[in-house]
Amino acid sequence: MIISKAPTLTDAQLAEVEAIVGEFNCKIQVIYGAHRNIYAIIGDERSETMVNRILGLDYVDRVDRMESVYKLMDKRSDLSNHRIRVGTVDIGSEPLIIAGQCTIDPKNPQTFLETAAGVKEAGAHALRGGIWKPRTSPHSFQGTSASMGTLLEARERTGLPVIAEVMDESQLRIAVEARVDMLQVGTRNALNYTLLAEIGRATAEQGIPVLLKRGRHMGPVDEFISAAEYVVANGNPNVVFCPRGSMPALDGYRNHPDESITPLLKERSWAPVIADPSHSVGRARYVPAAALAAIAYGADGLIIESHVNPISGIGDDPKQSITPDVLAGIIRDVKAVWKLRSRFNE
Amino acid sequence: MIISKAPTLTDAQLAEVEAIVGEFNCKIQVIYGAHRNIYAIIGDERSETMVNRILGLDYVDRVDRMESVYKLMDKRSDLSNHRIRVGTVDIGSEPLIIAGQCTIDPKNPQTFLETAAGVKEAGAHALRGGIWKPRTSPHSFQGTSASMGTLLEARERTGLPVIAEVMDESQLRIAVEARVDMLQVGTRNALNYTLLAEIGRATAEQGIPVLLKRGRHMGPVDEFISAAEYVVANGNPNVVFCPRGSMPALDGYRNHPDESITPLLKERSWAPVIADPSHSVGRARYVPAAALAAIAYGADGLIIESHVNPISGIGDDPKQSITPDVLAGIIRDVKAVWKLRSRFNE
Amino acid sequence: MIISKAPTLTDAQLAEVEAIVGEFNCKIQVIYGAHRNIYAIIGDERSETMVNRILGLDYVDRVDRMESVYKLMDKRSDLSNHRIRVGTVDIGSEPLIIAGQCTIDPKNPQTFLETAAGVKEAGAHALRGGIWKPRTSPHSFQGTSASMGTLLEARERTGLPVIAEVMDESQLRIAVEARVDMLQVGTRNALNYTLLAEIGRATAEQGIPVLLKRGRHMGPVDEFISAAEYVVANGNPNVVFCPRGSMPALDGYRNHPDESITPLLKERSWAPVIADPSHSVGRARYVPAAALAAIAYGADGLIIESHVNPISGIGDDPKQSITPDVLAGIIRDVKAVWKLRSRFNE
Amino acid sequence: MIISKAPTLTDAQLAEVEAIVGEFNCKIQVIYGAHRNIYAIIGDERSETMVNRILGLDYVDRVDRMESVYKLMDKRSDLSNHRIRVGTVDIGSEPLIIAGQCTIDPKNPQTFLETAAGVKEAGAHALRGGIWKPRTSPHSFQGTSASMGTLLEARERTGLPVIAEVMDESQLRIAVEARVDMLQVGTRNALNYTLLAEIGRATAEQGIPVLLKRGRHMGPVDEFISAAEYVVANGNPNVVFCPRGSMPALDGYRNHPDESITPLLKERSWAPVIADPSHSVGRARYVPAAALAAIAYGADGLIIESHVNPISGIGDDPKQSITPDVLAGIIRDVKAVWKLRSRFNE
Repeated sequence: MIISKAPTLTDAQLAEVEAIVGEFNCKIQVIYGAHRNIYAIIGDERSETMVNRILGLDYVDRVDRMESVYKLMDKRSDLSNHRIRVGTVDIGSEPLIIAGQCTIDPKNPQTFLETAAGVKEAGAHALRGGIWKPRTSPHSFQGTSASMGTLLEARERTGLPVIAEVMDESQLRIAVEARVDMLQVGTRNALNYTLLAEIGRATAEQGIPVLLKRGRHMGPVDEFISAAEYVVANGNPNVVFCPRGSMPALDGYRNHPDESITPLLKERSWAPVIADPSHSVGRARYVPAAALAAIAYGADGLIIESHVNPISGIGDDPKQSITPDVLAGIIRDVKAVWKLRSRFNE
Repeated sequence: MIISKAPTLTDAQLAEVEAIVGEFNCKIQVIYGAHRNIYAIIGDERSETMVNRILGLDYVDRVDRMESVYKLMDKRSDLSNHRIRVGTVDIGSEPLIIAGQCTIDPKNPQTFLETAAGVKEAGAHALRGGIWKPRTSPHSFQGTSASMGTLLEARERTGLPVIAEVMDESQLRIAVEARVDMLQVGTRNALNYTLLAEIGRATAEQGIPVLLKRGRHMGPVDEFISAAEYVVANGNPNVVFCPRGSMPALDGYRNHPDESITPLLKERSWAPVIADPSHSVGRARYVPAAALAAIAYGADGLIIESHVNPISGIGDDPKQSITPDVLAGIIRDVKAVWKLRSRFNE
Repeated sequence: MIISKAPTLTDAQLAEVEAIVGEFNCKIQVIYGAHRNIYAIIGDERSETMVNRILGLDYVDRVDRMESVYKLMDKRSDLSNHRIRVGTVDIGSEPLIIAGQCTIDPKNPQTFLETAAGVKEAGAHALRGGIWKPRTSPHSFQGTSASMGTLLEARERTGLPVIAEVMDESQLRIAVEARVDMLQVGTRNALNYTLLAEIGRATAEQGIPVLLKRGRHMGPVDEFISAAEYVVANGNPNVVFCPRGSMPALDGYRNHPDESITPLLKERSWAPVIADPSHSVGRARYVPAAALAAIAYGADGLIIESHVNPISGIGDDPKQSITPDVLAGIIRDVKAVWKLRSRFNE
Repeated sequence: MIISKAPTLTDAQLAEVEAIVGEFNCKIQVIYGAHRNIYAIIGDERSETMVNRILGLDYVDRVDRMESVYKLMDKRSDLSNHRIRVGTVDIGSEPLIIAGQCTIDPKNPQTFLETAAGVKEAGAHALRGGIWKPRTSPHSFQGTSASMGTLLEARERTGLPVIAEVMDESQLRIAVEARVDMLQVGTRNALNYTLLAEIGRATAEQGIPVLLKRGRHMGPVDEFISAAEYVVANGNPNVVFCPRGSMPALDGYRNHPDESITPLLKERSWAPVIADPSHSVGRARYVPAAALAAIAYGADGLIIESHVNPISGIGDDPKQSITPDVLAGIIRDVKAVWKLRSRFNE
C-alpha cells in the first residue's frame, strides 16, 4: 500500500510506479477515497527490492506492508478514517435504517410503492426491494429485471436511496446502469470472490456503497473482513458489513443471531456494520428485540424487512416482514439505545 | 397435574389421590407454590381410567394433561403466574443484577470481601462467589469448601443474598445447610438429571431459587425447559433460566452469545431469564455490550463476573471480570433499556 | 418434467410444447441423456390447465410433477438410471480414483508432469490439477490460466482425463474450450446459483461431468441436491456429488469429515458420490483412513490430493497431499472394501 | 507421576512419599496397572522442592511432570502399554463387539434373554442392556433397578460379560455390587466430573473397564481425554473412549457421525476406542456402513444396539436397533476391514 505525499499521484507518477511493480509481477490498484487515493500493490508485495525502489521515489511518503490477510480493511490502514454516506446519512453519525420488502412482487408493484411510502414515513433512510432472488430450487421464482423499474419509481416518489442485491455480473451491470444507491451481496455469495472483485471494479468510479452480508457459514471474523477486501482492493472503499445470522440455527429461529460479532469487526476494521435482524431471527415477532440488541452491540444501523401487508407478500415477507408501524417503534427505541451506548462502545 | 378446588389438599385428600395414582404406577409430587400447591402426577398420566377416577373426587377442580415434554414449566401450566424472589427483588419487576467473582481465592479471602462491598455499592442485588469449580483437568484447582465461610461472611457484611454453584450431592448438602440464597447449576451439569432431581428435592421446603445455566451444547429450546422440569417436578418451582453462550464459539469470543434465546424461552415457559454475558463473550471488554443486548432481548436480569482487581484473580476472573465501576455503568444503562423495551417484549 | 413416448421429441414437437408452456410463463429445458432426453418445465409447473394441454399431445407419455424442491435429481425421476462416465470408468461399476495436485505451481510445471505420471502408475483414473484458486485474501496467489497448458500436456502424456475447478464464467469458457474432461465447483461456490446454471448451459452439449463439492456450510441434504439441480435443469445431467468436510471442524482436522452423508444422498438422488478425504481431514497422515471410511459409507470413488514431493508444493499440497506410493496403497484397500460393502449398501 | 524402580512401592515407601507430598498440599493416588502401579501426584506438582525431595528417595526412578492437561492418559505416560481386557478379548488384538438392547423392557424380560442369545450367536463378545435411562423429560420412563436381575440372568445363560450405564452414585453402587463387567458413562454425563471421579474410586480395586461416551457437544479432543483422566487419576486405568456422534446433527442422522475422531485420540492417548454407530446415525439402516467406517478409521471395536425384534422394543430400539442377523454380517465385514487397515493405521 503506497501512501503518496500529495493526496493523489499524477498520471505520470502512477505510470512510473506501475512500471516498477510490473517488474515484480505486481499491479497497482487505485482506491478512490474521498480525501485521498490509496495505491494498493496487488500481488506479493514482500519483495524488499521492489519496496526499496518505490521508497526511492520522491513523491512517495511510505509503503505499508501489513501482516494481516487484509490490508485495506485493517483498522490501521490509511482508510481508517474513511466515512461512507448513504443518502443523507453519514454512517456513524446517526443510526442508518434501511427498510423495505424482501421481494418486489412483479404481479403487485403497487404494494411496493405503498411500502416505500410507509417506511419513509416511519423514518427509514433507504429503501430495500428485492429484484432477483437466490432460491434453493431452480424451479422457484427467481425474480425479474422488470422489478427494477418499480424500485426506481419508488425512489423517484419517495426520494429515498435504493438498495438492490446482485448475484452475478449481468445483474451488476443493470444495477450500476440504473445508478442504484447501494448494492447488496447476499450470504450465498459471501465467498464468491469473482463477483466481489467484479463489484469492486464496476463501482470503483461511482463509489456505490456495497452492503456485504456475512456468510451464514463463516467461521473466522478475518474471513469476513477478507471478503470485503476483495471489493476494496478492486477500487471501491465503500463497503459495509452486514451480520445476518449464522448456521446452525438456534432452535426456533431461522439462524443463530450474530449481531454480537459487531464489536469484533470494529476492533479489527474501520468499516461500518449494518445488522439484519429480519434474516437473523426469521420471524417478524422477534425482530424488534433483535434490532435493539444489534444497536446495543454497536451496530451503525439496521436493514429490516418491512411490508405494508406482510401476509400478502412473497418470498420471505409473510414470515419475517414487519409493518411500517412496528418499524416506527423500532426506530424510536434504536435512537434511545444509540445515545446510551456511546459510552461503552468506544 | 391435579388442580384442587382449594389452594391445597388436606393430608387425607392427598393420601386418597396417592392411593389412586399408585394403582397406575404413578406418584404424586407436591409443588409448593406461594399461593397454591400443585400436585403433579409423576409417571404415565395418560390413563383415562386413572384420570376419570381423580376427576370423580369432589375436591378436584380439573386434571391437566399437557402434550409437551414438560408440564409444570409450560407457560400454560398453573405455575404461569408464579413469581420468584431473590433478596429484595421480585424478579420481573426490575432488572435483577447478580455480581461477584468467578472464584473465591482461598489464599485471598479479603479481596472477595472487597469485591462484595464493591458490587453492592455499584447497585448489585445479589453476590456471586465460586466455591467449587468444575475443571477440565483433575489436576487443576477444584476449589475448597473453606470458601463457604468467606461467602457467608460477605453476606453478613453486605446484607446481599449469595449464590453458589453446586456440582454434586455433597456440595448441595453443604450449600443448603449454609442456607445460601440461590443455587447455581453449571453448564456441564445442565443434563445431569440425577443432580437436578436431587436439587429439586433438597430445596423443596426452603424453595431456594435455582439458577440453571444453559448447556453450552444444548440444541432444542425444549431440552433446556425440560431440564428445569426436573427441578420443579421434584418440588421446587423457583427455577431461573440462564443463557451463557453456546458452542461452537463465535471466533473471538469464548462462546457464541445466546442471549437471543430469551424470547423463545418466554414464549414457551413462565420462568424468568437471567443472562450471563461474562461467560458468553469471555472477555471483559465485550461484557457491557452483551449485557445490554440481553436486556434488549427481554432478559429479567444479569449475572456478571466482577472483581475489584481482575488481574489478580484466579479462575476466569483475569479474563472476563469487570470492575465494580464498569458494573455501575452497566446497571445504569440496563435500567434505561429496561424501560424502553416494555412495549415490544409483550 | 415431460416424458415423451419416443426417446426424443422432433423439432416440431418441441416447438409445440414450448408454445404451450410459454403461455403459462414457463420454458422448456432439454436435458440430454445418453438414452433419451428429458424435457423439464422451468417455472411454476403446477397449472392444471397447462399440464392437461400437454397431456393432450399424442407424442407425450406423461408429465411428472414432483413434490421435492428438486425434480430431475430425485431418485424417482426419469434420470434414475442415468450413468456417468469419466475416462474409462463407468461410475458405479468400480471405484473411480481422481488424484493430483491441489495446485499446479506455475514456477514448477515439471513437477506436475511427474505427479501425473506417478498417480497414473498408482492406479488413478483421472488427473486433478488446480489452475485457479479461490483464496481468502485478494493478495494471495490466485493461480494463472497459463497452467491450463500444463494440465493439457499432462493429459497428453498420460492419457488420463483431467479435471479443473472453475470459479466464474471466464474460467468456464477457457475450460470448456480446452475440452477438459471434468469440471469442479468448489465449496465456496456451492450456492452460487448463477455459476451453476451457467455451467449447466455451457456443458449441455458436450455433457462434461461436473463434480459439485458440498458447501462446507451446508445444512440440509436437500440443499446440496437442489444445487445440483441447477446444473441438470440447465441441460447437463452429468453431475457428481462431492462431500469434502463441513464446518465447524472437528478439533484436529481441517473440517468435520462428512463422508457419512453418502447414504443420505443415495437414498434421495441417483447421482454418484465421489468423496474428498484430503480436504475433509486436511492432513496427509489421516487421508488413508478417511478414504477407506468413505468407501465403507458407499462412495463411488475418491478425489485425493497427491504430489510427488508434497513438501515442495504450494497451496494445500504441503499439508494434505500424499505421495503416489501412499495412493497406491489406498487404491488397493479401496478395492477390497468395495467388494465387501456390496451387500449392505443396497 | 512417580515411577518407582520396583513395580510397586511397599506400604512403608508409599507412606513416606505421601508424607512428603502432603507438606505441599498434594496427595498420592495409586493407579493399579496390570504389570506395575503408577503413583500420581494429585494437586500442583510443579513445586521444585517437592519433586527434588521425592527424587532423593532411592526407590524412586523418576518423576514425570507432563505439560498436557492430562497426564496419565497421555500416550507418553507410563500407562502407554497398558492393555484392557473385556471378557475373552484383549482389546486391540481383535475387534471387540458389544451388542444388545438400548433398554431392557421390564415388562418383557424374556425378549432380552432372546436378544442375548442372538447376539452371542452372531459373534458378539459382550452384552449391552440399558437398565436406567437418562430421559429428556422427568415424566418419561427412567428405567428400573429390577432390570439388573434380567441382565445378570442373561450373563449367566450366555456367559457373555455385561455392560451397564450408570448415571449417579446409587446406580454405581448397585452395578459394582452386582459385579457387572463394564460400566458405561453416557454422553450427558461426559463432563460430570464428580461422577467420573467417583467411578474411578469405586472401581479402583476391581478395575472394571469404563466405557466413556464422548459428549455429543464436546469440542476439543483434549476435553474428552481429560474427562477420562478423572477416572484414571482416581484409581482405575481401564478406560475406553466411545465416539457416538456429535451435535449439531448431519441432516438425516441423529447426530453428526464422529468415528473420524479415532485417529486423533490414538495420536494423543494410549486408550482404546470402541465406536457407537447406533447412536451416531440413529437409524438401523445406516448402522452397517457406519460400523465399517469406524473400523476403517482405526476403532478397536464397536458397541451396537441389537434386538431380536426391534419394532417391539422400547427406548431407542425401534429406531436404531438391528437384528442379530444383520449384526452377524457386520461382524464378518468388520473382521475383513480390520485386516486391511493394519498397514495404514500404524
